[in-house]
Amino acid sequence: MATHRFTPTAYHNVLGTFPPALRIADGDTVVTRTLDAAGDDENGVNRSGGPNPMNGPIFVEGAEPGDALRVQIVAMEPTRDTGWTRQALAGNVVDPEFVRGLPPRERTLWQIDRAQGTVRLQQPVSGLEHLVLPLAPMIGCFGVAPSLGQAISTATSAEHGGNMDYRRFGPGTTVWFPVAVPGALFFLGDAHAIQGDGEIVGTGVETSFEITVTLGVEKRRPMNWPRAATAEDIITIGNARPLDQALQHATTEMARWLQQDYGLDLIAASHLLGQAVRYDIANVFDPAYTVACRLPKRYLPARR
Amino acid sequence: MATHRFTPTAYHNVLGTFPPALRIADGDTVVTRTLDAAGDDENGVNRSGGPNPMNGPIFVEGAEPGDALRVQIVAMEPTRDTGWTRQALAGNVVDPEFVRGLPPRERTLWQIDRAQGTVRLQQPVSGLEHLVLPLAPMIGCFGVAPSLGQAISTATSAEHGGNMDYRRFGPGTTVWFPVAVPGALFFLGDAHAIQGDGEIVGTGVETSFEITVTLGVEKRRPMNWPRAATAEDIITIGNARPLDQALQHATTEMARWLQQDYGLDLIAASHLLGQAVRYDIANVFDPAYTVACRLPKRYLPARR
Amino acid sequence: MATHRFTPTAYHNVLGTFPPALRIADGDTVVTRTLDAAGDDENGVNRSGGPNPMNGPIFVEGAEPGDALRVQIVAMEPTRDTGWTRQALAGNVVDPEFVRGLPPRERTLWQIDRAQGTVRLQQPVSGLEHLVLPLAPMIGCFGVAPSLGQAISTATSAEHGGNMDYRRFGPGTTVWFPVAVPGALFFLGDAHAIQGDGEIVGTGVETSFEITVTLGVEKRRPMNWPRAATAEDIITIGNARPLDQALQHATTEMARWLQQDYGLDLIAASHLLGQAVRYDIANVFDPAYTVACRLPKRYLPARR
Amino acid sequence: MATHRFTPTAYHNVLGTFPPALRIADGDTVVTRTLDAAGDDENGVNRSGGPNPMNGPIFVEGAEPGDALRVQIVAMEPTRDTGWTRQALAGNVVDPEFVRGLPPRERTLWQIDRAQGTVRLQQPVSGLEHLVLPLAPMIGCFGVAPSLGQAISTATSAEHGGNMDYRRFGPGTTVWFPVAVPGALFFLGDAHAIQGDGEIVGTGVETSFEITVTLGVEKRRPMNWPRAATAEDIITIGNARPLDQALQHATTEMARWLQQDYGLDLIAASHLLGQAVRYDIANVFDPAYTVACRLPKRYLPARR
Repeated sequence: MATHRFTPTAYHNVLGTFPPALRIADGDTVVTRTLDAAGDDENGVNRSGGPNPMNGPIFVEGAEPGDALRVQIVAMEPTRDTGWTRQALAGNVVDPEFVRGLPPRERTLWQIDRAQGTVRLQQPVSGLEHLVLPLAPMIGCFGVAPSLGQAISTATSAEHGGNMDYRRFGPGTTVWFPVAVPGALFFLGDAHAIQGDGEIVGTGVETSFEITVTLGVEKRRPMNWPRAATAEDIITIGNARPLDQALQHATTEMARWLQQDYGLDLIAASHLLGQAVRYDIANVFDPAYTVACRLPKRYLPARR
Repeated sequence: MATHRFTPTAYHNVLGTFPPALRIADGDTVVTRTLDAAGDDENGVNRSGGPNPMNGPIFVEGAEPGDALRVQIVAMEPTRDTGWTRQALAGNVVDPEFVRGLPPRERTLWQIDRAQGTVRLQQPVSGLEHLVLPLAPMIGCFGVAPSLGQAISTATSAEHGGNMDYRRFGPGTTVWFPVAVPGALFFLGDAHAIQGDGEIVGTGVETSFEITVTLGVEKRRPMNWPRAATAEDIITIGNARPLDQALQHATTEMARWLQQDYGLDLIAASHLLGQAVRYDIANVFDPAYTVACRLPKRYLPARR
Repeated sequence: MATHRFTPTAYHNVLGTFPPALRIADGDTVVTRTLDAAGDDENGVNRSGGPNPMNGPIFVEGAEPGDALRVQIVAMEPTRDTGWTRQALAGNVVDPEFVRGLPPRERTLWQIDRAQGTVRLQQPVSGLEHLVLPLAPMIGCFGVAPSLGQAISTATSAEHGGNMDYRRFGPGTTVWFPVAVPGALFFLGDAHAIQGDGEIVGTGVETSFEITVTLGVEKRRPMNWPRAATAEDIITIGNARPLDQALQHATTEMARWLQQDYGLDLIAASHLLGQAVRYDIANVFDPAYTVACRLPKRYLPARR
Repeated sequence: MATHRFTPTAYHNVLGTFPPALRIADGDTVVTRTLDAAGDDENGVNRSGGPNPMNGPIFVEGAEPGDALRVQIVAMEPTRDTGWTRQALAGNVVDPEFVRGLPPRERTLWQIDRAQGTVRLQQPVSGLEHLVLPLAPMIGCFGVAPSLGQAISTATSAEHGGNMDYRRFGPGTTVWFPVAVPGALFFLGDAHAIQGDGEIVGTGVETSFEITVTLGVEKRRPMNWPRAATAEDIITIGNARPLDQALQHATTEMARWLQQDYGLDLIAASHLLGQAVRYDIANVFDPAYTVACRLPKRYLPARR
């Protein structure tokens, strides 16, 4: 169970089957510094073009198609004191005729206080003079090489993960991705200091991070979509447009999970989901939207 | 500030401009017993056909078009010990080809323990033998007479409210509806003992209730969509299909609210929403879906 | 088979169960003059508020719930020389960020040459100086009283018909509506001199018309959605958002029609539709969008 | 203006930046034989796995990012006498609860009569014994290498083209793709003997073809989405889900084209599109749906 400090020499704007930048054993831990969504590092130096430059790929020994790659997000520390957002709601999250009055989508700077664990606007904005938000780190874009030799832009997401922009993908959360190529080929980047549901201004507070993840292989563990777990919940992810389809993917994946691992038939799964499910709208901005389907662990039967 | 005990002699399956069944003063409280979604009362006697028979309309003196009707949900008590659900996920919340394998949409009975405040399946279901859910009452369908002489089915929802099936519409929550006709003409019914996000089996635990609401008029308070507040949050509602459009309505209404009452311009509103908003998928089953846009009160500036 | 000249004394902005303005026998013909979408008559005199004021309702003797009302559009003649449109694409038919640059949605006047059967802009527009379009009359909004006591705005549409804005609903076309109340209660209005697919500026060339329809009752002829026939095609209509759901309704209704009347099973219906279907996007502007599913009559087997 | 006979030695299931299989001059013509969607050749021998194996890429000299690749579809001849379809409507094109009754999605064989130019079912199907459809060849999947190093599955489509499954992409049609990499890197395959709108059984009549295309470079001709022209119409394409967004892309691209090449401002473009546009639903089956926006050439002003 080694720990690797991984310093990329190049970055990727697509998730695809590239030569590994790092090769690790099943169960190893990786510590790596990510650029922000625009490619700026901890010193504000631009190191890569956009969108969302990725560290990786990391080859995990023993991972084969049909397995799952388990990613435990161990720690996330911002590596600089500023992040940035867009200052306007995205055109697609308001009524179409309301778009005419939206402000331009310029950048705004935010101050990150790492000691206090807070985030605030750098310049005062009328009415928000006292706004102090908690630092709530999350990984915007991560996943594995997709199937079929595809190379998918880090602007979007699909079955392999990618740019899901989900605020619960932070420290303490475990995520599983369906492995499509030998070694899984894991990528990560585009972390946020905080982000609301939906990423409705098109950004969280975008900044550079040091991220620690532990990567493991679960053999013969087929899944169609990413799955996750926090201390309280199990979670499935659907990536698609419209939100309706993303929700269909996430709900179907959860029904399958309940069948596979918890021995529920579809009637039992329907009862449990019908009265206890929670949905999160992770992002409603990227080319593919992301919906998370959550179920409290305390209602689950014992795992088979 | 009188309290009226209101016992309907007829029920409505549409929200429209009908002769008032009760006439009250601004600020009065109403206590009334609602049927379940299929029209059964506290004794299991069917008193009305479906869908979602409504108590009302209640005429609130002083309410005029352009005002808002404020509805404080004071208390909700189930009036019987059983409720029912459908036993299968709805076809529209799973991947289309997955529908082929769904179970039939038959009714299942649940036990409501009013003393313990719990809900559980009446017959054992494999894997859910120990499932005990909290009693979490909510009003499925309520609202006011719509504009233009429309009469809108209680199966669906729109700007006037209606069948929104949102789990946060329970005791302690205040809701505002845009008044379209003199007296507002308030209707309510279709309460649930508990319901998950999205109402994805097409029902919550459907049962009869005694509901206490306090109704007030806020003069010259234009809004396009229902608004609400809990102890922690302010909330706006959008009703439409697909979820994307419901979210657009709710987000636009929230941006307008922040401008009107909190003095934020659209840049400030974008910053606040972008990093702090929460969305709930209230229902993804009814003809119009419902999305709620929530914002924590602790981040709001003082109200003007 | 009488012919009635029907001159309304009042107009309706909802389709609902109102006292009949005219009572006719099964098979009778009605000639009536409709206002434009904004309520202006053949003299440009405003006679009603919007949206889409309707002539009617017409009670057709013998029509009962479960029957179909057959509407043959016999003739449509504009009653004045001008019509109007909006001058800008609607915000919802272009990419959201493109909305920022759209022109204001002001009115533009068009000249209708009834002798030549043409339509052209009244004021020259650069690049369109020579644009002459054919007069292509169609009924924007028509249908029957909906079920359940609903009264549905003429801005939108549903199973009962309503504001479908489909360019093939012109002279020579026959339309069937599902009857929900005794007498069917037929309404019509909002005719256009011409309109492109989708009604993407939010209007056709809106003007007043004299319309001749023959109304007949087909007993025990259940249908979920409006159906139609032209000389070449049979057509089913779906009204909903998004377009995907409107298409689902229309396709399902067509599959049912092929089963009911043409004796095809679902495999045969799938083969025929799969290789020969045509879809029209009737409107992508109104609260409910309208998709038409068309099938050439020449490929149909004999009707049972 | 040479003519090249191109016989692939390998096939691709993604459109991406691969070493050229053929290198031609601007204006050259290519004759090539394509496999069917499942990889079967003119002898029914399987030569590649699915989905939609592509011939190519073809490097066109002089093509650079920012240019357009012009593809004239000169001729398409089926190379065998049979094709195949799926026998059931796809789950996503009917009402969700209707899916429960759909037949299994098995293959059905069709007979192609190349002398007569007709297509018919190989085995009699009750009610369709006399169904004879015209041979109407079209290319299901073609396009260029996408930007950013992406490699996009031939199951789907995007700005670069891909699996659009549009029935008007047949002989006589010219298509323009936005060039993203040097040489454009053109791919083609997946041709159909006929297909209805929407590809609603998930296939046209899938078979192998000999296809003749002439490829030309138009310098500094930026476009966001594929464009096309037939004898009668100019056409723009949008690829996305839901249909609403595909339509937004296509409409926006058409508005831009009218501004760029025909000198119309957005008011004139709105007038012309509003009253004369036609939409085709090309496919409503693939991961990205395809909508075509068409405008008759006879209404266009002279090209600048």
